[in-house]
Amino acid sequence: MGKVGIDMSMSLDGFIAGPNDRPEEGLGEGGMRLHNWMFDDRSVFDRLYGDLVKDTGAVIMGRRTYDNSIIDWGGKGPLEDVPCFVLTHGPVPDADPVFTFVEDGVESALAKAQAVAGDKRIGLMGADTARQFLAAGLVDELRIHIVNVLLGEGKRLFDVLPRRVELEQTDLDSTDGVVHISYRVVR
Amino acid sequence: MGKVGIDMSMSLDGFIAGPNDRPEEGLGEGGMRLHNWMFDDRSVFDRLYGDLVKDTGAVIMGRRTYDNSIIDWGGKGPLEDVPCFVLTHGPVPDADPVFTFVEDGVESALAKAQAVAGDKRIGLMGADTARQFLAAGLVDELRIHIVNVLLGEGKRLFDVLPRRVELEQTDLDSTDGVVHISYRVVR
Repeated sequence: MGKVGIDMSMSLDGFIAGPNDRPEEGLGEGGMRLHNWMFDDRSVFDRLYGDLVKDTGAVIMGRRTYDNSIIDWGGKGPLEDVPCFVLTHGPVPDADPVFTFVEDGVESALAKAQAVAGDKRIGLMGADTARQFLAAGLVDELRIHIVNVLLGEGKRLFDVLPRRVELEQTDLDSTDGVVHISYRVVR
Repeated sequence: MGKVGIDMSMSLDGFIAGPNDRPEEGLGEGGMRLHNWMFDDRSVFDRLYGDLVKDTGAVIMGRRTYDNSIIDWGGKGPLEDVPCFVLTHGPVPDADPVFTFVEDGVESALAKAQAVAGDKRIGLMGADTARQFLAAGLVDELRIHIVNVLLGEGKRLFDVLPRRVELEQTDLDSTDGVVHISYRVVR
């Protein structure tokens, strides 16, 4: 079965987006500060991520991430034709067929993702989705890119969890302005 | 002038103590999880900290840190006879003469600390004190020990700040279960 992973850029003070994230500014005010490193040097991205489209079997994201990102993605999926499952309450929008809207919770979304992902990685997008999967004990791996800044305010990656989650560090890397730490969740 | 530094152990989800920190359990419930690494292997501590008493010219801490730690410290200062300045509102307790209680804010505490520290390091203790000094632009260095755990709840090191603080990574180290990142504050 493919591993379920969180892979996100975070400021040292724990934010993954600036304040006031919305469709016109999906990463919030000043939030691009956390993501510029991925675009500044393509070789850094390639070294860290390899062939992301080929290695990812499915993506699971929250509805807020979908709503705030779909303009940036030009109406398509974030990773070409990699299937995306969107946790949703409320009306399902017209969307590209790469998206499947899942209304019955994280375990259902995971089952659907696993059915198409084979042994490829299943990536989680969005802080709320990450938190729900962590709370349910469904995350296998985390890679956190700690960006050299205290953003001061915005959207936190890690909010309160119902239990402690022990981690084992599996890799440590550093590139210009960013420390990259990989963990395996200890069960 | 001595550098003003924050040096703290933090869970990956940003906590420096568990919930319900109080004098009988200064690090909160489960909070020792974040600090055990310092006691598990004395050689790790010595390599990272060197001679902390000799190198530290003064300590500035919040009143909550004082109240929650003074039992553990046996009524003495945390670093032998290194002078400690305690930011305080309200009644000043009877205390060991290593402690000076400062009632007129962070800049006054810093001036008093600088007057005794010479060119030695001034260490900040406690999340609230760290935040106040960061907000006032008075911090020179941070070293954060990121412990391999999501604690889930507790006291956050970094709360909301009134402005973005850019950092430059100056060192990166890793020991069993902990990643140690040093930063210089960019002004």
